[in-house]
Amino acid sequence: MRNLKITLSYDGSDFFGWQTQPGKRTVQETLEAAIAKLTGEERIRVNASGRTDAGVHALGQVANFYSRTALATAKLVPAINAHLPDDIAVLEAADMPQAFDANHDAVRKLYRYVIHDGPVPSPFLRRYACHHKRRLDDRAMARAALPLKGRHDFHSFETDWPNRMSSVRTVTHLAVNRFGDYLWIDVEADGFLYNMVRAIAGTLINVGRGYWPESQVQAILDALDRTLAGPTAPAHGLFLVRVTY
Amino acid sequence: MRNLKITLSYDGSDFFGWQTQPGKRTVQETLEAAIAKLTGEERIRVNASGRTDAGVHALGQVANFYSRTALATAKLVPAINAHLPDDIAVLEAADMPQAFDANHDAVRKLYRYVIHDGPVPSPFLRRYACHHKRRLDDRAMARAALPLKGRHDFHSFETDWPNRMSSVRTVTHLAVNRFGDYLWIDVEADGFLYNMVRAIAGTLINVGRGYWPESQVQAILDALDRTLAGPTAPAHGLFLVRVTY
Repeated sequence: MRNLKITLSYDGSDFFGWQTQPGKRTVQETLEAAIAKLTGEERIRVNASGRTDAGVHALGQVANFYSRTALATAKLVPAINAHLPDDIAVLEAADMPQAFDANHDAVRKLYRYVIHDGPVPSPFLRRYACHHKRRLDDRAMARAALPLKGRHDFHSFETDWPNRMSSVRTVTHLAVNRFGDYLWIDVEADGFLYNMVRAIAGTLINVGRGYWPESQVQAILDALDRTLAGPTAPAHGLFLVRVTY
Repeated sequence: MRNLKITLSYDGSDFFGWQTQPGKRTVQETLEAAIAKLTGEERIRVNASGRTDAGVHALGQVANFYSRTALATAKLVPAINAHLPDDIAVLEAADMPQAFDANHDAVRKLYRYVIHDGPVPSPFLRRYACHHKRRLDDRAMARAALPLKGRHDFHSFETDWPNRMSSVRTVTHLAVNRFGDYLWIDVEADGFLYNMVRAIAGTLINVGRGYWPESQVQAILDALDRTLAGPTAPAHGLFLVRVTY
């Protein structure tokens, strides 16, 4: 059996997230069906670096699957794509050692949260950026984000999820960037809690709107209390950008 | 009666073009219904700089309409947008002299044709760029386009349309640009024939693929014969960028 690693991109707008759920259109189920159809195998099980929620996009999700296909990786990419709908695309494929696990072996993941803060929502980016009518103070957001860098207990920034062992994570990179009427918050970490980037985005947006002082972010982090952080920002602004192994 | 000029953007993917047609979702009908609902007038007639075909997008379409509304233009923009679906947005509004006609008074229009020539189609730009698997020679396309600049009879680049007087137009700007795996062909002219930009794009794509020598474009222009030019490129790569008055 080959163990194949694939890098893929998807527009999350019309998916109920990554994970297979009965009666719902999900990325996992769509991808598994496409690969099984191509290789003629009865059942393909695709294991992603992590689940993405309904509406969340991916520029560089990574997954692995075992298959008996004899197709060279260069031919596998267009062949899988030929069986996929146009809102998912496989970008790369590579043979990996048997033990490679796209979920457990991920060292870091980079997520990007995109905000459009021009006066009129864009017909073209309405699915890919969270819109705010009034301009946000991105420099205040960047300063407010500083305490989140490094190793911390991020319990204030997670939606509760049963049986999770620890909410300590290491944020290796956190930046707030602007180009014109678009802002993006990049967060790279060794792992993410449920809704963590969206809770960070919702918190920084409250700072950017002037609702909260910059110092509030440190206080929220210290409190270990989700009710103190900002709202979970909408899914359609969130992109999984890349996974590092 | 006020004569109001509006600048608008729309994602053409889910419209059967600009012009009202019975039983079809069109930009004109959607916009007229939104404005009439806002102002309470029985019938609003919106007159665009020109029709766009099914699937064609606009970044800066311009139109005018007569109305008795008392709303200040700064309030009119968000008020109309509140009545519009999210694939159309009004960007600006301005009071104009009674005689202003968005169609007849347009001096120049700029269209952009966008091509993605990376190996894998993008889930995010599938609606907004025409995809070619193999890289096109954009420098050959730029050189080939040179004979099209200036005043010419563009009959070879029009889909026939009854009762049109003349196919002589002046192309004031024509450029082929690349950024990474994306190419865009900008064409500005004092007027456009039916499907003219898409026929120019289809012709230059044939040069970029190496099917045709660069010199063929001059020969096609001279022949005044549509059957010699390239195919009409797909609508979803085309954007009306701006209209100059």
